[in-house]
Amino acid sequence: MINMAKNIAAFGEVIMRLQVPGHELLSQSSTLNYTFSGSGVNVVSALARYGHTGYLVSKLPSNALGDAALSFLWKLGITHSLITRGGEYIGMYFLENGFGVRSSRVTYSNRSESSFNTASEDTYDFKEIAKQIDTIHFCGTTLAMNDSVRTQMKIFAKEVKERGGTVVFDCNYRPSLWGDNGYVKAKSHYEEMLHLADIVMMNEKDAMFILNMQTEKKERTEQLMELIPTVAKKFDISGIAGTHRSINDTNIHSLRAFIFKNQRFTFSKTLTFPVYDRVGAGDAYSSGIIYGELAGFTPEKTVLFAATAGMLAHTTVGDTPMSSKEDVLRAMTEAVNDIER
Amino acid sequence: MINMAKNIAAFGEVIMRLQVPGHELLSQSSTLNYTFSGSGVNVVSALARYGHTGYLVSKLPSNALGDAALSFLWKLGITHSLITRGGEYIGMYFLENGFGVRSSRVTYSNRSESSFNTASEDTYDFKEIAKQIDTIHFCGTTLAMNDSVRTQMKIFAKEVKERGGTVVFDCNYRPSLWGDNGYVKAKSHYEEMLHLADIVMMNEKDAMFILNMQTEKKERTEQLMELIPTVAKKFDISGIAGTHRSINDTNIHSLRAFIFKNQRFTFSKTLTFPVYDRVGAGDAYSSGIIYGELAGFTPEKTVLFAATAGMLAHTTVGDTPMSSKEDVLRAMTEAVNDIER
Amino acid sequence: MINMAKNIAAFGEVIMRLQVPGHELLSQSSTLNYTFSGSGVNVVSALARYGHTGYLVSKLPSNALGDAALSFLWKLGITHSLITRGGEYIGMYFLENGFGVRSSRVTYSNRSESSFNTASEDTYDFKEIAKQIDTIHFCGTTLAMNDSVRTQMKIFAKEVKERGGTVVFDCNYRPSLWGDNGYVKAKSHYEEMLHLADIVMMNEKDAMFILNMQTEKKERTEQLMELIPTVAKKFDISGIAGTHRSINDTNIHSLRAFIFKNQRFTFSKTLTFPVYDRVGAGDAYSSGIIYGELAGFTPEKTVLFAATAGMLAHTTVGDTPMSSKEDVLRAMTEAVNDIER
Amino acid sequence: MINMAKNIAAFGEVIMRLQVPGHELLSQSSTLNYTFSGSGVNVVSALARYGHTGYLVSKLPSNALGDAALSFLWKLGITHSLITRGGEYIGMYFLENGFGVRSSRVTYSNRSESSFNTASEDTYDFKEIAKQIDTIHFCGTTLAMNDSVRTQMKIFAKEVKERGGTVVFDCNYRPSLWGDNGYVKAKSHYEEMLHLADIVMMNEKDAMFILNMQTEKKERTEQLMELIPTVAKKFDISGIAGTHRSINDTNIHSLRAFIFKNQRFTFSKTLTFPVYDRVGAGDAYSSGIIYGELAGFTPEKTVLFAATAGMLAHTTVGDTPMSSKEDVLRAMTEAVNDIER
Amino acid sequence: MINMAKNIAAFGEVIMRLQVPGHELLSQSSTLNYTFSGSGVNVVSALARYGHTGYLVSKLPSNALGDAALSFLWKLGITHSLITRGGEYIGMYFLENGFGVRSSRVTYSNRSESSFNTASEDTYDFKEIAKQIDTIHFCGTTLAMNDSVRTQMKIFAKEVKERGGTVVFDCNYRPSLWGDNGYVKAKSHYEEMLHLADIVMMNEKDAMFILNMQTEKKERTEQLMELIPTVAKKFDISGIAGTHRSINDTNIHSLRAFIFKNQRFTFSKTLTFPVYDRVGAGDAYSSGIIYGELAGFTPEKTVLFAATAGMLAHTTVGDTPMSSKEDVLRAMTEAVNDIER
Amino acid sequence: MINMAKNIAAFGEVIMRLQVPGHELLSQSSTLNYTFSGSGVNVVSALARYGHTGYLVSKLPSNALGDAALSFLWKLGITHSLITRGGEYIGMYFLENGFGVRSSRVTYSNRSESSFNTASEDTYDFKEIAKQIDTIHFCGTTLAMNDSVRTQMKIFAKEVKERGGTVVFDCNYRPSLWGDNGYVKAKSHYEEMLHLADIVMMNEKDAMFILNMQTEKKERTEQLMELIPTVAKKFDISGIAGTHRSINDTNIHSLRAFIFKNQRFTFSKTLTFPVYDRVGAGDAYSSGIIYGELAGFTPEKTVLFAATAGMLAHTTVGDTPMSSKEDVLRAMTEAVNDIER
Repeated sequence: MINMAKNIAAFGEVIMRLQVPGHELLSQSSTLNYTFSGSGVNVVSALARYGHTGYLVSKLPSNALGDAALSFLWKLGITHSLITRGGEYIGMYFLENGFGVRSSRVTYSNRSESSFNTASEDTYDFKEIAKQIDTIHFCGTTLAMNDSVRTQMKIFAKEVKERGGTVVFDCNYRPSLWGDNGYVKAKSHYEEMLHLADIVMMNEKDAMFILNMQTEKKERTEQLMELIPTVAKKFDISGIAGTHRSINDTNIHSLRAFIFKNQRFTFSKTLTFPVYDRVGAGDAYSSGIIYGELAGFTPEKTVLFAATAGMLAHTTVGDTPMSSKEDVLRAMTEAVNDIER
Repeated sequence: MINMAKNIAAFGEVIMRLQVPGHELLSQSSTLNYTFSGSGVNVVSALARYGHTGYLVSKLPSNALGDAALSFLWKLGITHSLITRGGEYIGMYFLENGFGVRSSRVTYSNRSESSFNTASEDTYDFKEIAKQIDTIHFCGTTLAMNDSVRTQMKIFAKEVKERGGTVVFDCNYRPSLWGDNGYVKAKSHYEEMLHLADIVMMNEKDAMFILNMQTEKKERTEQLMELIPTVAKKFDISGIAGTHRSINDTNIHSLRAFIFKNQRFTFSKTLTFPVYDRVGAGDAYSSGIIYGELAGFTPEKTVLFAATAGMLAHTTVGDTPMSSKEDVLRAMTEAVNDIER
Repeated sequence: MINMAKNIAAFGEVIMRLQVPGHELLSQSSTLNYTFSGSGVNVVSALARYGHTGYLVSKLPSNALGDAALSFLWKLGITHSLITRGGEYIGMYFLENGFGVRSSRVTYSNRSESSFNTASEDTYDFKEIAKQIDTIHFCGTTLAMNDSVRTQMKIFAKEVKERGGTVVFDCNYRPSLWGDNGYVKAKSHYEEMLHLADIVMMNEKDAMFILNMQTEKKERTEQLMELIPTVAKKFDISGIAGTHRSINDTNIHSLRAFIFKNQRFTFSKTLTFPVYDRVGAGDAYSSGIIYGELAGFTPEKTVLFAATAGMLAHTTVGDTPMSSKEDVLRAMTEAVNDIER
Repeated sequence: MINMAKNIAAFGEVIMRLQVPGHELLSQSSTLNYTFSGSGVNVVSALARYGHTGYLVSKLPSNALGDAALSFLWKLGITHSLITRGGEYIGMYFLENGFGVRSSRVTYSNRSESSFNTASEDTYDFKEIAKQIDTIHFCGTTLAMNDSVRTQMKIFAKEVKERGGTVVFDCNYRPSLWGDNGYVKAKSHYEEMLHLADIVMMNEKDAMFILNMQTEKKERTEQLMELIPTVAKKFDISGIAGTHRSINDTNIHSLRAFIFKNQRFTFSKTLTFPVYDRVGAGDAYSSGIIYGELAGFTPEKTVLFAATAGMLAHTTVGDTPMSSKEDVLRAMTEAVNDIER
Repeated sequence: MINMAKNIAAFGEVIMRLQVPGHELLSQSSTLNYTFSGSGVNVVSALARYGHTGYLVSKLPSNALGDAALSFLWKLGITHSLITRGGEYIGMYFLENGFGVRSSRVTYSNRSESSFNTASEDTYDFKEIAKQIDTIHFCGTTLAMNDSVRTQMKIFAKEVKERGGTVVFDCNYRPSLWGDNGYVKAKSHYEEMLHLADIVMMNEKDAMFILNMQTEKKERTEQLMELIPTVAKKFDISGIAGTHRSINDTNIHSLRAFIFKNQRFTFSKTLTFPVYDRVGAGDAYSSGIIYGELAGFTPEKTVLFAATAGMLAHTTVGDTPMSSKEDVLRAMTEAVNDIER
Repeated sequence: MINMAKNIAAFGEVIMRLQVPGHELLSQSSTLNYTFSGSGVNVVSALARYGHTGYLVSKLPSNALGDAALSFLWKLGITHSLITRGGEYIGMYFLENGFGVRSSRVTYSNRSESSFNTASEDTYDFKEIAKQIDTIHFCGTTLAMNDSVRTQMKIFAKEVKERGGTVVFDCNYRPSLWGDNGYVKAKSHYEEMLHLADIVMMNEKDAMFILNMQTEKKERTEQLMELIPTVAKKFDISGIAGTHRSINDTNIHSLRAFIFKNQRFTFSKTLTFPVYDRVGAGDAYSSGIIYGELAGFTPEKTVLFAATAGMLAHTTVGDTPMSSKEDVLRAMTEAVNDIER
């Protein structure tokens, strides 16, 4: 259908999401809804929905949970030929929905013992895989796991870069994953990945906290406009994109997106909208940036496409973006409709 | 209980509504909730709830789906003695709930092959039926179906008019039902129905697009006040009623209702409220107008009763209005309560 | 863990809450979710969650419903050693959730025939019970039941007071429970309880309507500041606390809390928030006041703790507060979070 | 459709059935499914399904529970014109499904305080009602309620009998409803009803225990054949019908039905089948007997039709029979099918 | 993983299955569970699960239902590259579960108007498709649809046969699809397909009723052994397989399978087992026969593998077989386990 | 109520059970029901239900999953004062229900990293705990975990034994937990525990496989009667109890229980019954033996009480026995009832 379809892979863990339905706590309910996601899953599923071929490079256990995860990835349209089976566990997180002033709460289980995170270093033939793919996506949460996974990630990035593929890196720093002195532990690993990356998702906070860069500015847009060009230059990154988010008590979020490219910042208008499911919306944004870049959109169109994809991902159930390209394009221009019928 | 109870019928299709629970898409969920509705169903069910006797003139298949539809109509308080059984199918629509900036989405199935839409022209003995009823309700969606249904509709309207009954016609033009050049195709059929109708639900858009009337005015209230009196005069309609709706992104709608009667416009105050279920609220408004007219309310009371009935129908589950007359009357005067206990 | 843990009891009925899930009416749905609650249940459960030992003094039927109620109280962390079994019924209420301009609706069943409300006067050995507890909580809804329950309540309050325990009384006047001329019927009973109480939950409306006190003031804060000191003096009450609530159509409530103590009013800031489940939030506020008083908080901290506990109780499912002490303390200071992970 | 359609009424309570889904206990679950039934509801609903007009003579509260009950009766096809509204409560029973060796368990609530059971003696105009109906059905459970209900029941039976209508009485003695010395208390009331009845549902146990009749026989068919003719003669009953049931541990029941009429016993073959929902199957049998008698079936056909209707009622959800006349007739002759498609 | 993996396609309709959960009727429930299946879907999904690549040659509408169907096929592991989008509808069937003596009931909707059944004759490039596949599966239900679909089916079969692929044909005659004089209408079409087929699923009833063959034998195994060799010879079919099923009232089925190949009958032992979901079990059997033939199993192993696959498909939810090859192989030898843990 | 109430503790892990509802596989469903159980949980919950005080000595994480587990233990009536909080994880198992010939399937997660299994050796003050309890229960699955847990278990058993308490040990050998050469690894640990135990749950298989004892006998009752007395003597065990189970394909199990005590075998009759939930039924049996021994029942009564408790536990939902003492005693004597009402 589209003859510009690319082979896009992500390297990352598949996580089982177990969500308490409605607004009860785990100590009140007796039911969970489960799906399977992960940053890489979300990104390549969205790109597959937009017409590319999306691969996941990962490892799943050879048991009923691994089978269920694999079926779910199929359902999301992900091509499974680069997924390895083995090991014992799958990472999980339990999600209790917040309401208004009560935040949603995430409780992880089994993440460090997962098949992906305990895979031996020779699990994947990255040289072979790099031949099959045009673009690879990495996420900072994977970088937080352990030395073995970090090593795999860097080798994989190098192989793709060497073959001329595009390396996308989403900083996505999570304090709870890095623990005490996290920024100090993380800095050198992030720097290595930034050197290998072509497209990076980050904002001024990452520059300030992970890369320990200084600024006198107080306002975040000013901080951003000062720091991001320096990062791009230092690490030789062709595109840096990200968002600024603000939140109020009644579940209305605002997003303003940017891309810095060819020495120029492009900002989207500020989108304001009520939120149904917050998790994974950043991945929808990333997939929008990747899609726009591969499609040769103008920066203005790319950043609005990505912001709109991100906005729509807040309105659907689950971590993984569910909107089609047509949905995103329509929401970029039209006002909200009464009912589509 | 009320000695002014009238026999009110509607002519129209029963449609099965299959709704994905919560906010998932059809491609995410595995469960549907189903009910049975239709414009006529909604109107006569509301009027039955208000104390009249509500009949439906329709046809349902002789199978398990037809049985389920019939049980549901019973549950809504509709008298079934004018319903015929036969044919094979029931029309269906699948509803995916939107959220915030994501619109709800309707997918139809089997509508043109339904028992109602394929009923032969001699299915109903309209002459006999006209003797039993005081008021008949028709909807513009039925007019969009096919020639046979259109013919039935016009014959039925004539029979009722001839016997001195009241003919209510809700324009309810749906672009997707009429297809390309829809307004051109629809015009003469609408004109025939308007000539037969006593009470009509429409607003300035129907006048401009269906009837192809011209106005220099830009603002919709001005357009309305210029065009509607012309329509009333041309087609000899005793009452024309309708609403103006505005929608924002966070699911808050505003409604302002009007009735034009005895050469005079009466407007309700503007009601503003959050929306739970949008479908069928227009039918609640229509039933309120019919109820007010039959009860001999002042135009001021009729239009507020109808607008309030419409507003409440946005707050209950399903297409069919569920509020009692007491609920509507109370909501016309009182502020919102904490909890009724 | 806390060596200041007190033995806190409540005297009151356990009520079964049968709630239509979602927003359907009882005449639309076919499913109910059930829990067990009651004003006393809510208060002592919250205090148990905060680290005290919470007892309920009540009576439950010796059948499957009584067993289910007891299991549920256990689940809430309530110590059951003061609960008696016998009688035939448990009080129930059916709850239909409102939406926006449509109020929630409560329908009671079997309340007056419940095991608690038909317990003979010698059911409980209040003298023995009074020895085991430091604080006792009573609610005005219990006072509305019948003479036998009222007698038990007053005997129990006297026994606790005589042994130096703290008596808490929440006025909680419900018009529907007292019927016609309710305020007249209720006045002497409320006065007796106020004479016995150390801490009272009430506001200016209770003073004006139940105690029939007069004021020239028009604004409710002014009324409050005039009347409450008089009540405190007349009945020799050491602390009186309460809230002012305002509600808008789109489910946003505002709460401002106060405590009057040592001749001084302390007010919290006004908290504004969307509401998920309104029932029982007043009990969360009461438990916050009791907790603060027992912990020796400043009035400023007590009143904000209680208001915040009340606010959070609007965001969780069910009548009974589910937030931990840490949740409340965090919400007193922090802005709303994105997601806790 | 059938020009022999009769007006058949039942006099009895509407009961709300609240069932724990699946096989959990009330102390394990948090969800209930609810429907509305009652012996009279079941019988006239089945007869309406078979083509007659089915009325219920009863009283329902004027609240949300009464509204829900009424909607449910509509859904079952019952004509509601003889139902009165008022009073406060509806009787309820909670049902926990058994499994294998664990019996199902029923817990009643609010039955004696229900609108029906507390209706004043002048609630119904039995003389007027008797004019509108051909056949009236009474159940022994209603006889167990209180003196007022018993009086209403006997007056109603007399009025119908006097006007030449048919009186059906189902003995249905429930030990738990009559309490200690129940048989002694019940005897005279049963005798009065038997004197008024034309068709009676009972078997030898009723004769032995309620009517205190003696027999030397040991085997139940022999007891039946000795005692039932004596009952028929003594009370001048034209038809007595009933069943013998046997049960095994794995949920397989066997039913053998009989009718005694014109001095002759007719037995059905023994039907053996697995059971899904036991409650209400006796009412399906009764409605089959009434249907057969009204249709002028041979005793052989009547007894098999009724037994088969009873058997099918064990296979559907809920108390109320859901099979059509065609379903029953087909099951009388055909072997079980693979799938009907 | 398996280097003998074949490309196996099926040509057929995707049908949406809408099933009432539990044992309620459509007129009792308000919820449906939906999946997507079809004879071809079932067969190629099973073969994909066993390690082959499974394609479906079909057409799905370009709407939300088509998207949901496609996601579901992905989830089943089916390769979607030969699926076309367009048209308006998807076929549906509603399933009400039977219990014991009450049969399950299927109600179809929209089948003849489905995208697949209304696809124009040039929809698929069968010549190209035939190049990509090794084996093609056809089902007799497709043959019943209309002339256009029949033509497509025969062209496709010829193309595959000409290129040396294997043609599998499952007779699967459904009386309700062919209508009056169905066998007469069907005969020539079946004969054409039998001439094109290499492997055929049928038994003696197909020979007698569709092909109008005569036999003096009374017992079905004798009829089978007389007629099947004649069919194989006449139509030059290399393998004919099928089953004999018997059913009792308590949901226990027995299956005995056979294959006739190289002039020799091989029978499996008779398997007896309780049934959870009957629909689609025949397709599991077919996929087992195809798998065994492709794997070069002995007839003894093939027939037992297929019968066991069929038996297991009766124990899982939905139309589509869910057992892995390992599950089938284990169940061929082991007794039933307590719990696998 | 009972003045013979004992303090009975269990030492063991709390496991979260996540069960696919109905009969779908993990790869088909999207919902899980969860409860919390464990061998020790099951035993002391049953004994608390019978009137004793049941403690659990265990460790739960300080997060939302730990809170949920604790609430659930409360709901089961377990006294939580000996439960420690800390660590990160809770063990989990996923349960897919089998049907007929398809076995149920269990998939474990996170068991070895659970708070309980990673608790440091000084977590519990066994000397203090031993003072508070009369009886302690251990399970062989705990013995399979790791050296640290095994050490804790043995120290705890010694402390209780030294203080004159009763030590109960359920062998419960699970091959999958011990891995290759499991019996060899397990033998010495089991022998240590047997030396410390007063009451042991085991049968002849444990003697043969774990203890490596030899017998010439072929039939299991003969093996049992030869080996168990030797075990009792060698390890100085006062009572050894166990069951023989047999299973057929249609979900009917048979249980015959025994106790060996005072040199004498006592067998129960063989109980045969259909099974709803197999997991945890062994713990119900153990709790019955403990209850009978503490109550001073005759061996005949003890063994029938325990077998019946075990049988009933097969008929209720979840791992944990839910029957009351009255339920067990009634089921020991009565035939299955129709319905209890």
